[in-house]
Amino acid sequence: MVTFAVVGGDVRQLKLVQLLRQEGHKVNIAAFEKDPDFNKECMDFKNAVGLSDCVLLPIPAFTAEGYVVTQCSDERISSNALLKSLNPGSLVIGGRLGEEFESKAAELGCCASDILNREDFSIANAVPTAEAAIQIAMQQLPITIAGSKCLVAGGGRIGKQLAMRLHLLGADVTVTVRKASDAAFCESFGAKAEYTARLETLVQGSDIIFNTVPELVFDEQILAGVDKTCPCIDLASMPGGFDDEAAEKLGLVLIHALSLPGKAAPVTSALNLKKVIGRILAETAAPCH
Amino acid sequence: MVTFAVVGGDVRQLKLVQLLRQEGHKVNIAAFEKDPDFNKECMDFKNAVGLSDCVLLPIPAFTAEGYVVTQCSDERISSNALLKSLNPGSLVIGGRLGEEFESKAAELGCCASDILNREDFSIANAVPTAEAAIQIAMQQLPITIAGSKCLVAGGGRIGKQLAMRLHLLGADVTVTVRKASDAAFCESFGAKAEYTARLETLVQGSDIIFNTVPELVFDEQILAGVDKTCPCIDLASMPGGFDDEAAEKLGLVLIHALSLPGKAAPVTSALNLKKVIGRILAETAAPCH
Amino acid sequence: MVTFAVVGGDVRQLKLVQLLRQEGHKVNIAAFEKDPDFNKECMDFKNAVGLSDCVLLPIPAFTAEGYVVTQCSDERISSNALLKSLNPGSLVIGGRLGEEFESKAAELGCCASDILNREDFSIANAVPTAEAAIQIAMQQLPITIAGSKCLVAGGGRIGKQLAMRLHLLGADVTVTVRKASDAAFCESFGAKAEYTARLETLVQGSDIIFNTVPELVFDEQILAGVDKTCPCIDLASMPGGFDDEAAEKLGLVLIHALSLPGKAAPVTSALNLKKVIGRILAETAAPCH
Amino acid sequence: MVTFAVVGGDVRQLKLVQLLRQEGHKVNIAAFEKDPDFNKECMDFKNAVGLSDCVLLPIPAFTAEGYVVTQCSDERISSNALLKSLNPGSLVIGGRLGEEFESKAAELGCCASDILNREDFSIANAVPTAEAAIQIAMQQLPITIAGSKCLVAGGGRIGKQLAMRLHLLGADVTVTVRKASDAAFCESFGAKAEYTARLETLVQGSDIIFNTVPELVFDEQILAGVDKTCPCIDLASMPGGFDDEAAEKLGLVLIHALSLPGKAAPVTSALNLKKVIGRILAETAAPCH
Repeated sequence: MVTFAVVGGDVRQLKLVQLLRQEGHKVNIAAFEKDPDFNKECMDFKNAVGLSDCVLLPIPAFTAEGYVVTQCSDERISSNALLKSLNPGSLVIGGRLGEEFESKAAELGCCASDILNREDFSIANAVPTAEAAIQIAMQQLPITIAGSKCLVAGGGRIGKQLAMRLHLLGADVTVTVRKASDAAFCESFGAKAEYTARLETLVQGSDIIFNTVPELVFDEQILAGVDKTCPCIDLASMPGGFDDEAAEKLGLVLIHALSLPGKAAPVTSALNLKKVIGRILAETAAPCH
Repeated sequence: MVTFAVVGGDVRQLKLVQLLRQEGHKVNIAAFEKDPDFNKECMDFKNAVGLSDCVLLPIPAFTAEGYVVTQCSDERISSNALLKSLNPGSLVIGGRLGEEFESKAAELGCCASDILNREDFSIANAVPTAEAAIQIAMQQLPITIAGSKCLVAGGGRIGKQLAMRLHLLGADVTVTVRKASDAAFCESFGAKAEYTARLETLVQGSDIIFNTVPELVFDEQILAGVDKTCPCIDLASMPGGFDDEAAEKLGLVLIHALSLPGKAAPVTSALNLKKVIGRILAETAAPCH
Repeated sequence: MVTFAVVGGDVRQLKLVQLLRQEGHKVNIAAFEKDPDFNKECMDFKNAVGLSDCVLLPIPAFTAEGYVVTQCSDERISSNALLKSLNPGSLVIGGRLGEEFESKAAELGCCASDILNREDFSIANAVPTAEAAIQIAMQQLPITIAGSKCLVAGGGRIGKQLAMRLHLLGADVTVTVRKASDAAFCESFGAKAEYTARLETLVQGSDIIFNTVPELVFDEQILAGVDKTCPCIDLASMPGGFDDEAAEKLGLVLIHALSLPGKAAPVTSALNLKKVIGRILAETAAPCH
Repeated sequence: MVTFAVVGGDVRQLKLVQLLRQEGHKVNIAAFEKDPDFNKECMDFKNAVGLSDCVLLPIPAFTAEGYVVTQCSDERISSNALLKSLNPGSLVIGGRLGEEFESKAAELGCCASDILNREDFSIANAVPTAEAAIQIAMQQLPITIAGSKCLVAGGGRIGKQLAMRLHLLGADVTVTVRKASDAAFCESFGAKAEYTARLETLVQGSDIIFNTVPELVFDEQILAGVDKTCPCIDLASMPGGFDDEAAEKLGLVLIHALSLPGKAAPVTSALNLKKVIGRILAETAAPCH
């Protein structure tokens, strides 16, 4: 049994607390005083962290200014204050912790594990993302996915899961890829794979476009060929893959769909988190203690 | 080229008008004066019907009191008034026309074709229904369809399309059937099939329940075994397959999801309509004229 | 517990005997003396039939000359001799029994049930047929099913199961149909559906052709457009759907693949048989006894 | 246009020659004198190699003794002799070339590219391998894939493609993995994923077992739990993942299914080769010339 501290985060973290307690772990909570269920048991973050073997931070863990992301609290906890409260030998798990944080934690004799660098977490999370993207597509489209022409930019983890599901639902799916191995995989289940360079031609006649590539892919010239009735769903972190201004000027429907796993399937998300946390604990047990 | 009259209906009918005109047909419109696009060209229904070879009524065509369903109009057109306006030799197509209407039409030398009796229409429409049911499930569930335990009551056209899609999305699907041939079909693609009599056991542990059977299937005793977090989606026409009162008393989430094709995928719906109307015209050309 | 007589048949029947005995039924066997395992316990067919409540005949039951099909025996048992041996009130189950046999059985106070008229049996059996057809295709083709262009003539039970599987394996599938409702179903899972009249065009460029229609569909003119490297797999009973002479003249590879369930998946076949026999017994218990 | 030399190999290489010539390339052939079609145009390997920009060797390229694999020739061409014949600046492509060969080629101013190190080739080739494994399973099993319990050891490229297809065909599929990310992927499409350590339990009740792991996974203790009717298909290179002696002692059916892409789908294989060769040429053009 492990003593956890859950510091900040959203509805996923709260679900995670339940799951960890169901397995018999002790969980201290900090920075959740705005949540009606957890308000009473909220502890000072220094106590929560100091009393725990494993500190769970949000995903991503910190704001641009270096404070823990606290959606259910007004508390401002800097990454440095957090580091100071750590027990030597403890483990910190969170998203996009940053090299500086990781090396400082190491100096303090602690392990820091960035969950967003783990492929098992990314693949597991691609499923709720792909499902949520399909849900948005169903809401936006006046036609069924079955029989529709779908374009997916990017053949990575999310692109693969999304394209596979669209194909299975009866859509005509084209995936644009950069890596030949992603093309091979997408073709293996019946999608068409094309290189990104051909996007200008490929957008024509598409009923819906999904982007998963975290850089500008759909510039003004490419967007000019997109049908006015074709929704564009951007799954990549901001600023995303579309030229927003151009899309607006052209009157296109552009939806930035972000943080989908936590929003669309918080319980599945928390279960994925718990699984991966268990694996990190198993893997780092030896070097940390 | 055929002259159509479209009398009453919803957004599907409006889309249908566009599709028919794109193919070069003349279309007269009545009982749509509340729609901004069609307001100006709305005709008196007697003229519209009298000038046309083929009259398209809504699906279903008539209210319980025997008036044409007119969602975009306050006009009250009785089925008898409609019959009187028909050209001899013309064809009337609509949903649930009723035997009396059909025999009266025949007496006037007209053909009446109930589109809801056509299997091609029902099967084509089961696709938008199944997709919309999945969309609702995604909205309601805090978990992904992948890995969820889904129970589908009824292995008919909609049950098959729904169960097939849920299975392909990675769910663990059980379908309850009455006909052994439906069991055989559902097993053929990897779902489990059980007889309806076993529902009381099957509801336990389900993450979501869909009903497609148009009669009371889920009574109080069966509902008592349903998990409080398990949404119940009723796809059958009212009153549907759930004991509404019992569901409310038990605090269950029960959603009556009706007329899904027209709401969730009006364009696909209108395309299906147009295809089937074309087939009815081809099949009835000889006997009617 | 029921006493069965199994008279004639093939390896499926032998497997069926095992399955029935595993469930505690008594099974008398006749006309299997060439089978090493059953040779010793073979009874005279009159005794076997006379001592049983339910007589299981092969599928199909009789040769063109009216004798029971006995693949593991040289015995010639006429349908009339069989009828004479029946216990009043007993049930006869077999394939393609014929109206004459059924009415004669009724005169003797017996029930005769033609298993090939049951939709549950046909649908369950379409699965091993579809799988075996895919196995043959894999053997014949120097390319993978994934990415191949497949043409399936006929959108009935076998056509649907076959087309669905080929699509899921990543093929580009076209199904030719006669019924609009079959077209709607095939389109629902992502195949293309076309009317049979368009076959002459559709054969061009196909990598493999499957026929499921039990009448001449592929005549000389249509076959002339088939690529020399495109295998033709006929799943329909002889004479099947291809003009054999024309195919030979054109140098095409034509394979008559018959009785696939018993050959490719005898155990699944026997399990399907047992399930359906159980249902027939349940349904006919009342009227027969 | 490029001048190729194809030296040694099997039917895939011959098909590849056709495909390259169809695109207008010049292809010199060596070590194919036993093939009736290519016998006449066979050149001395030194000429063939010396006159070419790009030398295509078999996959794998060399025997354990260091000679080119020549299935259609008795010629013995050592890797050193081959190196000596190379044009400076030319490109050599083949399977498992070895570090020594690659560094010697580099010394001669040539590029050597091991096609078996390319992920795009491995993924593309996993499709014919997975299909061929399913074909073998269909031949071996007296039941259908639909409804069968399948165990796949290894969740790598081949394991994923195989498990995905078995699941889509309606099987109950468990994949054993070493990497958590492979577990996540296999679960994403509906298979169960377990760690390899649990194999002893998992083999029980399996209808068929596939191995894709290139080391001893199924030892005597694990094999003792395998049902006598459960075929074991080994897809990993010799010696493979089963203890052959133990399997024989236990009376299990063990099939070493090797080099499946070339055997089961030589044309798809040659097309994959051609695609990847094209990419290697594009990528290495600059550094080599």
